[in-house]
Amino acid sequence: MRALVKPAPGPGMVVRDVPMPVIGSQDVLIRVLYAGVCGTDLHIWEWDAWAAGRLKPPLTIGHEFAGRIEKLGPEAVAEGLLKAGDLVTAEGHIICGHCLPCRTGNGHLCVRTRIIGVDRDGAFADYIAMPASNVMPLDGIAPEIGAIMDPVGNAVHTVLEGGDVPGSTVFILGCGPIGCFAVGVARAAGASLVVASDLNPRRLELARAMGAHVTLNPSTDDVVGRIKELTGGLGIDLVCEMSGHPAGHAQAFAAARPGGRVNLLGTPSCPTEVDFARDVIFKGLTLYGVTGRKMYSTSHAMQRFLKTGQFDPRPVMTHRFPLEGIEQAIGVIKDGQAGKVILEIDG
Amino acid sequence: MRALVKPAPGPGMVVRDVPMPVIGSQDVLIRVLYAGVCGTDLHIWEWDAWAAGRLKPPLTIGHEFAGRIEKLGPEAVAEGLLKAGDLVTAEGHIICGHCLPCRTGNGHLCVRTRIIGVDRDGAFADYIAMPASNVMPLDGIAPEIGAIMDPVGNAVHTVLEGGDVPGSTVFILGCGPIGCFAVGVARAAGASLVVASDLNPRRLELARAMGAHVTLNPSTDDVVGRIKELTGGLGIDLVCEMSGHPAGHAQAFAAARPGGRVNLLGTPSCPTEVDFARDVIFKGLTLYGVTGRKMYSTSHAMQRFLKTGQFDPRPVMTHRFPLEGIEQAIGVIKDGQAGKVILEIDG
Amino acid sequence: MRALVKPAPGPGMVVRDVPMPVIGSQDVLIRVLYAGVCGTDLHIWEWDAWAAGRLKPPLTIGHEFAGRIEKLGPEAVAEGLLKAGDLVTAEGHIICGHCLPCRTGNGHLCVRTRIIGVDRDGAFADYIAMPASNVMPLDGIAPEIGAIMDPVGNAVHTVLEGGDVPGSTVFILGCGPIGCFAVGVARAAGASLVVASDLNPRRLELARAMGAHVTLNPSTDDVVGRIKELTGGLGIDLVCEMSGHPAGHAQAFAAARPGGRVNLLGTPSCPTEVDFARDVIFKGLTLYGVTGRKMYSTSHAMQRFLKTGQFDPRPVMTHRFPLEGIEQAIGVIKDGQAGKVILEIDG
Amino acid sequence: MRALVKPAPGPGMVVRDVPMPVIGSQDVLIRVLYAGVCGTDLHIWEWDAWAAGRLKPPLTIGHEFAGRIEKLGPEAVAEGLLKAGDLVTAEGHIICGHCLPCRTGNGHLCVRTRIIGVDRDGAFADYIAMPASNVMPLDGIAPEIGAIMDPVGNAVHTVLEGGDVPGSTVFILGCGPIGCFAVGVARAAGASLVVASDLNPRRLELARAMGAHVTLNPSTDDVVGRIKELTGGLGIDLVCEMSGHPAGHAQAFAAARPGGRVNLLGTPSCPTEVDFARDVIFKGLTLYGVTGRKMYSTSHAMQRFLKTGQFDPRPVMTHRFPLEGIEQAIGVIKDGQAGKVILEIDG
Repeated sequence: MRALVKPAPGPGMVVRDVPMPVIGSQDVLIRVLYAGVCGTDLHIWEWDAWAAGRLKPPLTIGHEFAGRIEKLGPEAVAEGLLKAGDLVTAEGHIICGHCLPCRTGNGHLCVRTRIIGVDRDGAFADYIAMPASNVMPLDGIAPEIGAIMDPVGNAVHTVLEGGDVPGSTVFILGCGPIGCFAVGVARAAGASLVVASDLNPRRLELARAMGAHVTLNPSTDDVVGRIKELTGGLGIDLVCEMSGHPAGHAQAFAAARPGGRVNLLGTPSCPTEVDFARDVIFKGLTLYGVTGRKMYSTSHAMQRFLKTGQFDPRPVMTHRFPLEGIEQAIGVIKDGQAGKVILEIDG
Repeated sequence: MRALVKPAPGPGMVVRDVPMPVIGSQDVLIRVLYAGVCGTDLHIWEWDAWAAGRLKPPLTIGHEFAGRIEKLGPEAVAEGLLKAGDLVTAEGHIICGHCLPCRTGNGHLCVRTRIIGVDRDGAFADYIAMPASNVMPLDGIAPEIGAIMDPVGNAVHTVLEGGDVPGSTVFILGCGPIGCFAVGVARAAGASLVVASDLNPRRLELARAMGAHVTLNPSTDDVVGRIKELTGGLGIDLVCEMSGHPAGHAQAFAAARPGGRVNLLGTPSCPTEVDFARDVIFKGLTLYGVTGRKMYSTSHAMQRFLKTGQFDPRPVMTHRFPLEGIEQAIGVIKDGQAGKVILEIDG
Repeated sequence: MRALVKPAPGPGMVVRDVPMPVIGSQDVLIRVLYAGVCGTDLHIWEWDAWAAGRLKPPLTIGHEFAGRIEKLGPEAVAEGLLKAGDLVTAEGHIICGHCLPCRTGNGHLCVRTRIIGVDRDGAFADYIAMPASNVMPLDGIAPEIGAIMDPVGNAVHTVLEGGDVPGSTVFILGCGPIGCFAVGVARAAGASLVVASDLNPRRLELARAMGAHVTLNPSTDDVVGRIKELTGGLGIDLVCEMSGHPAGHAQAFAAARPGGRVNLLGTPSCPTEVDFARDVIFKGLTLYGVTGRKMYSTSHAMQRFLKTGQFDPRPVMTHRFPLEGIEQAIGVIKDGQAGKVILEIDG
Repeated sequence: MRALVKPAPGPGMVVRDVPMPVIGSQDVLIRVLYAGVCGTDLHIWEWDAWAAGRLKPPLTIGHEFAGRIEKLGPEAVAEGLLKAGDLVTAEGHIICGHCLPCRTGNGHLCVRTRIIGVDRDGAFADYIAMPASNVMPLDGIAPEIGAIMDPVGNAVHTVLEGGDVPGSTVFILGCGPIGCFAVGVARAAGASLVVASDLNPRRLELARAMGAHVTLNPSTDDVVGRIKELTGGLGIDLVCEMSGHPAGHAQAFAAARPGGRVNLLGTPSCPTEVDFARDVIFKGLTLYGVTGRKMYSTSHAMQRFLKTGQFDPRPVMTHRFPLEGIEQAIGVIKDGQAGKVILEIDG
């Protein structure tokens, strides 16, 4: 079968022929229809320090996908909950189920997590093997949307953690694809005011298309000042930090109201200076680090939003390429004009 | 000044001239513009067992209102947070602030609660005195809507308690005014499916006008069966029991999904038989008794919904009368054709 | 191997020779050392309506046990987290992992739950097969204590659900083994006052041995009156209803304070009359139906309590019998003088 | 009356004669028996940048105290909940009750907070005036212990926020008086392992006296390494950062387990560098800034702990001085040998 492979340490990827995946007794084999290209795939393409420290080539890349079940292992068949032909997506974090985080509702923090396309073969291929327990039927959600339930799930996790979104004010700081999804999720969840910021005017357009009430550009707007104006001088209930920049952190803490919450998803590449006394302690803030998706309460809320159409990610889905078009896909992401980029593998 | 008074034990009320209220050092005097008529006022009009056991006539009736601040006590003036001329409403539960429920975030369950129009003089009058801490500026909300923030707050309390409304399925059982408000609140809070039931077709119309996706009439529909169909056989995440009927309780428990929640607001007039093993324990249900409004987190969420227009109660506001029209107001409530009834006192 | 079997519909059980269990690829085979006898086993012995409606004989009985891993399926071996020779216990609810309760943190309410000793072969036998994900290493906990982590877990679930036990007042209503365990769990979790009630003086002795500050006998004490005295007239923060009697429900609701919580574990055999207006709504109570153990946050807290000795169930462990002594074991449970009864299978 | 006064900007304080406080209609006048000396009082004595920026001398200092009610304002008398002669303490944060934090359960973050001894006259005096709603009857708690319910409350707030202390592992980083209290609170609340660290051996002694299972001194111990050993390599469930040092922050984040919590009370005097990706986001940590006490759920839990003796702060109460001994009191705090220091004003 075809697969997009990192053949050896170093930049780039190649489409090559690889053997079909072998499935275990509780696994399913999925024919991939669509896949999403993520910033992580860009790091892997470029072979940055993180990628060099973690990946063991040769490896098939890709962790966002949807497809059709082709075959099931004997115990997955016996279970009877999934069957060949089902349209599905899958949670890409494969976890041990035995460690303390797994045992206490934080499987997304499993100490033995193996991520598809990072720690084992991934989804930019004609077929992928997944444990049956990671597989979720699309149940009417279009497969090209099912293909991006991983990053949409990141957005849902970031917005919903800490509850109380209905009637609240939300500030989405950073409008890459996940930030834009977060705008739509906050609207679907009943936020009363959604403010979004980014340096890139094209991304602010996408944020508005997803329902942002107000967009701010730090290059021309006094972001914190405007947020204080919009909130009667008090600040924002929930800040979603999606930029990963130290300047973003400073704005996030300054924009949050006393007793507010800052959920941090954007992963910075360097340390940040924090004035804990002024910005966290005296304000009584709660900070929460977001990684992955809660398994599977995040997915459940997301599926409801997608099935009813309360949340529609399509305005953010700006580009589509065939598997062989990966270099162009990486290109449009790097030049900052893309929202979400989809690979049509067998779509 | 004019006041609608229960002059002595027994049915009925009269408009009569009474002295202006005297205010304490931390009180405010409010000129009443609009007031809402509640089912409780109907019990008081009819002088049922509850009313006879609790009220000490002569008493001015009415607990839902909005108005304009006329005067402030000297310490309320000094505080500087409210001023003459402000359009306001007020929480009608006056609490001690010292008992354990007050001290632990449950002021609405204060063991010394005194309710205006029930335990002390109320709002169906030209003026009312209120402690400054109970008063909330309308901040742009229209006064006729401000007048019903008490029952809207009941609906917000019922729907939001237990969190997790975004993406959830909600069943509103009983579509009196608070049930209809609850439909709108559930939609504003991001519910994915809102089902409403009532025996009265006129009320089901109002529920649809407030955004119910599906309405059911127990006289013709298999309510629990239809809810199972709508939820893949599983049942509803959150049931709001607003009817107070034993038949409603049975449907509520049967309609809730395993691990679901039943918030009970409708106050039954007789005991209910409950099969705790089948309906509560083996299903892992959570039941919660709703009284009043959380002071003041409920009001805060409600104000946000009202100011942004995410929630608009006006379709339910079907009738308006002057203070002297109280008998007609009581009449339209009793005959079941009214939604919310407003008294225009100085509107 | 030996197994205690319900051979056919009807009362009684027999020890007989049965084939060794077959294990799947992700299962483990466990040599049973100790097992606990539960009230459920009594219902099965007596073949009451519940048992007759649910069990499909022939079936090996028993769901509480600890033992030593004898063998692992190939994928469980590969996983490397469990190994032959490990002392372990196991969660007896085998769940699907795919239904909405499973996917949203309520695996104990899985719609496809299969319980060992009820829906599939159980633990009153020399060996039992279990899915690796249900197995928990004892990690230094004595195996005879490991054998009763199922009912201790019921107690932990009942006491900890709803949080806030530190500094709270707790009323344990019903002092069978799980009630007595609940007394000890409430003490370990920092409750300030633990009151326990039962009609059986022997059980009240056990409750005192587990740390109850006050014990009450409804046959001689005014239970609700005494609880009001002990709580400044207000009532109890958390009531754990472990009796399953309608009289227990009435006391539970009357004993709870405004804003309090009633967690219901005792399964009544008939419906109860509830005055929802007086007892639940106006008091703002939360009721919660307890079934099984939260998988696996309950187990995690329990293991910590057991390993540190903060909680020690041994005063309640009053009787031990060999597998062949099942009839005596059932006998001491029926006559009400036993606490927890253990079968020494290979101990 | 006597009062310990900061007469003018600059270091030091003086005991001088000042007029008796005037009380408002809902205030009470309290004769002070005991008062606690806090690190904040040291900052005020030394007139550091914070003190110079906030205090407006002349001002009576002191915010921790207990005493006897001498007189009540007319509306506080009418309320009937407090009376002359009652032994009481008081919450020292006087809040507006109207701002969003006040209205949503975060009165301790009121945007108009006025602290006694900082923003208005304090408790190092023969008498103090307090709003009745801030006053709490001691109800049997000894007045010298009642005098330190402010810092004990800080410890309770830090330990209990985020729940789930029963059965958890807790690391108290910094063993000044509040850190030592936190050790005792964690034990009272059912923690399974309490580790405490400080550079000062005398403070580690106090931590052991309060119940720390393990004490570590960063000058000789590998703190994070030892914590990993004690927790099976995983890290701590709840870190209470009481030191305010950047080195403490680094240890706090490194010591917390994936999915753990860091509650920050120690107020640093300079910014800290944080690696959010490694330390917060990938670990899924929750950070929470602790200021003051939750009004009044913190006080409620604390009163229960103190009344039952589950928590006893006396080992930490190392020194007592008369009001005139303030200079010695400040001296023993500065030289690091004191735990909690008490002023006996009329004790």
